[in-house]
Amino acid sequence: MSYFRRDIDELVGYTPGEQPQAGKFIKLNTNENPYPPSPAVARAISATLERGLSRYPDPLATAFRQRAGEVLGVDPDGILCGNGSDEILTLVTRAFVGERELLRLPYPSYILYKTLAQIQGARSEEVHFAADWSLSDDFLRPADGLRLALLPNPNSPSGTIIRPQRVLELAERLPCPLLVDEAYVDFAETNCLALVSASDNILVSRSLSKSYALAGLRFGFLVAQPQVIAGLRKVKDSYNCDALSIAGATAAIDASAWLAENRARILATRVRLTAGLRALGFAVVESQANFVWATHDGRSARTLYEQLKQNHVLVRYMDYAGWGDGLRISVGTDDQIDACLALLKTMV
Amino acid sequence: MSYFRRDIDELVGYTPGEQPQAGKFIKLNTNENPYPPSPAVARAISATLERGLSRYPDPLATAFRQRAGEVLGVDPDGILCGNGSDEILTLVTRAFVGERELLRLPYPSYILYKTLAQIQGARSEEVHFAADWSLSDDFLRPADGLRLALLPNPNSPSGTIIRPQRVLELAERLPCPLLVDEAYVDFAETNCLALVSASDNILVSRSLSKSYALAGLRFGFLVAQPQVIAGLRKVKDSYNCDALSIAGATAAIDASAWLAENRARILATRVRLTAGLRALGFAVVESQANFVWATHDGRSARTLYEQLKQNHVLVRYMDYAGWGDGLRISVGTDDQIDACLALLKTMV
Repeated sequence: MSYFRRDIDELVGYTPGEQPQAGKFIKLNTNENPYPPSPAVARAISATLERGLSRYPDPLATAFRQRAGEVLGVDPDGILCGNGSDEILTLVTRAFVGERELLRLPYPSYILYKTLAQIQGARSEEVHFAADWSLSDDFLRPADGLRLALLPNPNSPSGTIIRPQRVLELAERLPCPLLVDEAYVDFAETNCLALVSASDNILVSRSLSKSYALAGLRFGFLVAQPQVIAGLRKVKDSYNCDALSIAGATAAIDASAWLAENRARILATRVRLTAGLRALGFAVVESQANFVWATHDGRSARTLYEQLKQNHVLVRYMDYAGWGDGLRISVGTDDQIDACLALLKTMV
Repeated sequence: MSYFRRDIDELVGYTPGEQPQAGKFIKLNTNENPYPPSPAVARAISATLERGLSRYPDPLATAFRQRAGEVLGVDPDGILCGNGSDEILTLVTRAFVGERELLRLPYPSYILYKTLAQIQGARSEEVHFAADWSLSDDFLRPADGLRLALLPNPNSPSGTIIRPQRVLELAERLPCPLLVDEAYVDFAETNCLALVSASDNILVSRSLSKSYALAGLRFGFLVAQPQVIAGLRKVKDSYNCDALSIAGATAAIDASAWLAENRARILATRVRLTAGLRALGFAVVESQANFVWATHDGRSARTLYEQLKQNHVLVRYMDYAGWGDGLRISVGTDDQIDACLALLKTMV
């Protein structure tokens, strides 16, 4: 007999991309940054380590919030820090969506959202993107128990973006909060941060995993109006961010020049990857993220994924039920991308 | 209008002990270890930092589980790692207790348990300890919707322990899982780890914050039968422990000689603190933890707390509704304890 809630027993669980702990792979499957983080991050972590770890960390990560507030031009009281933006998504879901209530998400997008609803004992509803990756007014339609809408922007796997003007329109017409998941936004042309002051209905989450090259550190944050942040603080664990990650994240958010340079390199390689794949006959969506979504009329995406893996190149094979499959390939270094393209050339 | 779930709107929220970010305090209020952690911890963290943070960490913290399994004599598949044992408590509550269902806890004990039930939209029921801090069969009585019982052991604020034989009896007779919160157990004479293999009804949580002097690192873990751990893995965030904390925790759990020496020092100072307080007329419960619970017939605990704070000594003032108040004083260094006792001597 199981003591788990029925929702948990029935849950398959979210499977993140493979993280091989051994073996030598060119890893283009989980959108990590191929470059090391700003050297200021390690310096800040070492200094904190030197000062010691026996005391509890600041429950509100004030140092980060103040620095991020200045860098991003937002109110520090409108920032909630989390143990990765995954924790932010979990907290927001727990705060807004009760059992049997409804969470809305676009499709195909980040599969985790659906799992978060399931864990909460809530329902989820997928609204399909249009063929051009725009989002129709179907995303706004009233529904019983609708309590939260999640919008990854840029989206995964497409790398496409919904313009801020349209996001604001969605938020103003939705009967529930809209969380804009901007995990990849530093690689895009635009973002929705400025909308937060315009609407208490808009929450924007950010991650330091991708654009700041800190997936191993686990740090993300949410920007929303202060009264929303105050409510969410009640839901989080008291000390949800550790002393080393607060120090590292504070140094990272301050490293604007590093970010600009890293972004420029990734964007240049993204152009190269997109062109290289198209030259091999792939259809590639124009990406605003650090990955591209590629499909090939003549070749099975699953087979290509498996053949690449045999050759120690990991990409993400995605199969969205009722929609289709393809390869999501992270933008690595030029050398990594060249190696991947050279292998694909022998396969298509 | 608020979009929060009503449970969240109505929630006051858990307030952790004060963590002054500025000013010089003798901090005896949140049961941190007054000594630095094993030097092996900083070495392991520095080595991981050197290897880089741009990759996601191992989702299952396998290195820690293997080392902890050997050190503690438990199955690595029976270990779940968490971002502090607070996260473990949150995960277990979310996995077992649905809205309007019931969580049982002893009283007075760790106030957070009640908050966790409230966040989940669940009910909680407090069963009072007997005057000698034993737990009567009232803790076992059937109740509608009872899904989880939490037992801090050693308990806070009393520092007392329920013997493993009695814990096993409770677990076998309860109609729901029993989580034994062993955050302070390394300072006690006994523990319940061996009970896990005897009953799939027993879950034991541990923290590295206190006995391993790593409150700033955020690392805790749960020991239970592997099928229980497998269910809980579905509820946790994919990458809930960061690369630095996994490395540091693995080094810490391996440092058995450091633990034994640190424990001996804390226990010696606990004897000194207990005797010193009693000499000043305090009633002090015999403690199995790194703190003591002290009350004074002739003096207001709140006033003593405030006077100590004015003199830059922080202790924890606790006021349990319907039960009483007192001071919970962490075992610091001998010098810190002497300073606290000298101040108290001028006040009583």
